Amino acid sequence: MQIIHTVKELREWRKTAGKVAFVPTMGNLHEGHLALVREAKKRADNVVVSIFVNRLQFGQGEDFDKYPRTLQQDAGKLADEGVAVVFTPDEKELYPNVEQRYNVEPPHLQNELCGKFRPGHFRGVATVVGKLFNIVKADVACFGKKDYQQLTIIKGLVEDLNFDIEIVPVDTGRASDGLALSSRNQYLSKTERAEAPRLYRELQKAAEAVRSGSVAYLQIEKEVVRSLSEAGWTVDYVEIRHAQTLEVARAGDTELVILGAARLGNTRLIDNLEVLLS
Amino acid sequence: MQIIHTVKELREWRKTAGKVAFVPTMGNLHEGHLALVREAKKRADNVVVSIFVNRLQFGQGEDFDKYPRTLQQDAGKLADEGVAVVFTPDEKELYPNVEQRYNVEPPHLQNELCGKFRPGHFRGVATVVGKLFNIVKADVACFGKKDYQQLTIIKGLVEDLNFDIEIVPVDTGRASDGLALSSRNQYLSKTERAEAPRLYRELQKAAEAVRSGSVAYLQIEKEVVRSLSEAGWTVDYVEIRHAQTLEVARAGDTELVILGAARLGNTRLIDNLEVLLS
Repeated sequence: MQIIHTVKELREWRKTAGKVAFVPTMGNLHEGHLALVREAKKRADNVVVSIFVNRLQFGQGEDFDKYPRTLQQDAGKLADEGVAVVFTPDEKELYPNVEQRYNVEPPHLQNELCGKFRPGHFRGVATVVGKLFNIVKADVACFGKKDYQQLTIIKGLVEDLNFDIEIVPVDTGRASDGLALSSRNQYLSKTERAEAPRLYRELQKAAEAVRSGSVAYLQIEKEVVRSLSEAGWTVDYVEIRHAQTLEVARAGDTELVILGAARLGNTRLIDNLEVLLS
Repeated sequence: MQIIHTVKELREWRKTAGKVAFVPTMGNLHEGHLALVREAKKRADNVVVSIFVNRLQFGQGEDFDKYPRTLQQDAGKLADEGVAVVFTPDEKELYPNVEQRYNVEPPHLQNELCGKFRPGHFRGVATVVGKLFNIVKADVACFGKKDYQQLTIIKGLVEDLNFDIEIVPVDTGRASDGLALSSRNQYLSKTERAEAPRLYRELQKAAEAVRSGSVAYLQIEKEVVRSLSEAGWTVDYVEIRHAQTLEVARAGDTELVILGAARLGNTRLIDNLEVLLS
C-alpha cells in the first residue's frame, strides 16, 4: 500500500491504475469506514482512500482542532483491507491559497436539517469532494448512508455538475444494540453509550408508524422528539423527508427517510432510516 | 468531423480520443474563435469545440433569445479547421432539471468589472465551464484574452477546484483598425463600426502613460472615460488591475492589465490590454 501526500504523485499513480474506486474519509477509521472500503474493493482494480480533516466543513466552535488524527492506525487497517493508496494531503496541498476562493455551492438543502445547525458545512463538504473527485478521477466512489444528507448532496452535485463518477451508497454499520457506527461514539461516557441506541429505536418506532399507514408525519416527528427529550437528549431535529430529494415528505410519497440529530451531553449523534412504502 | 449532441455519446468518443484540446464557445463563430481552434490543434490529437448558448450566463434583459444560432455555418468553419468533434447539446441535455441546483461559485471578483454590470454572469460561466470540463475531460482548453476576466476566473477555478486541465490563454484577434473581434461587432451600424476602434486606441494611450512611469492610475482611467464619453460612448468602466489576480493595481505592480467596457448605442463592447513593466 502506498501513502501519497501530493496531488502530483497521485495523478502520476492514477495513469496506470485501471478502474479505481474511491472512499473519502477524515480518518479515525472504524468498522463503518471499512465497510465502505469493502464495497469499493468489489467494484474496481484499485481502491484509493483519502484521509483529510477538511477545515472547510467545520464551523466555528466545532471540533476541527480536536478531531482525532490517527494516521498510523488508519493506515494499518487499510493495508489489511488491501487498499492500494492512502491519499493524505496536508492543508497546504489542498488549500495552497489558504482561502478556498472557488466553491461548489449546493442548493437550499444545504441550510436544512443538519445544515441548519452547521452553517457552511455542506458547502465545505461539496467543495472538498469536488476537489478530491478532480484529483483522484475515480470511476466509483462509496459514501455511507449514515450521513444521508451528505450522500444526497454528493449525488446531486455529481448529477448537476456532470462528474463522471458512479456514487455507491453503503448501508449504515451498526453496533449490536443498533447504534450507528460513528467516530463520535468514542466521546460518549459509559452512561451515554448505554442511552445512545435510543435514537435508532425511536426512528424505528416512527418508521413503524409510517409503514402502518399514518401520514401524520408532523405528529410522528413530535413523538420522537418528545421521547428523546424526556430521556435527556437535546434534539436538533427529527424529520420525515422524501428519500431521493430530501424535500419535506407529503402524503402519497412512497420513498421516505426519517432523519434525526440529537445531542447526548456534548456529543451530537445523527441517524436515519429509509422507509419504502409499496 | 462528428457533431455530437449528448453527454453519453461524447463520453463514448472520448475513451479512444487520445490527447484532447477543448474550445468552449456559444457559436456564431468568427476569426477570433478560429484562432482558439488553431491554438488547440497544435496541442492535442483531437480538438473538441462546444457550441452551447448558455442561458445561465445571461442576465435579465440580456440577449439570450436573440443570440445568433448559426450551427450550420459554424460547423462548416470548424470542419475546415480539422476539428474532430462539435459538441452541441440542447438545454435539456445540460440542464435536465431546468434549474441548475449546484453551482461553481467564484469569489468576489465575479461582482467586479463586467460582473458589476452583469449580475450572475460569471457564476453561470464558471458553472457551465465546470460542467463542460467534466464532460469533455480534455487535457487542454483554450480561452481568449479578449474576455480577460472570464479567463482569470477560469484559471482560478481550475487551480482552486483541482481540475486536471491546462488553460491556454490566446491573444485577442483584431480587425486591421484594432477593433477586437467579437460576435457583437455585427450589431454595430456603419457609423458605430467606424467609431468602435477608439476603445482600443484609448487603452493603448493609457498603456503608454503607464509604461512611461505614471502610477496615477485613477487619473489615467478617468482620462479614458472622459475621451470615450466625449466621443458618444456610455462607459461602464475603465480600470487598471493586476494582470494575474485582477486586484486593483497598486504602484509597484509590474504585471498590469487595463480593462474597459463601454457601449456604443445598444452594443456593449469590451477590450483590454496587458502592460508588463520591467
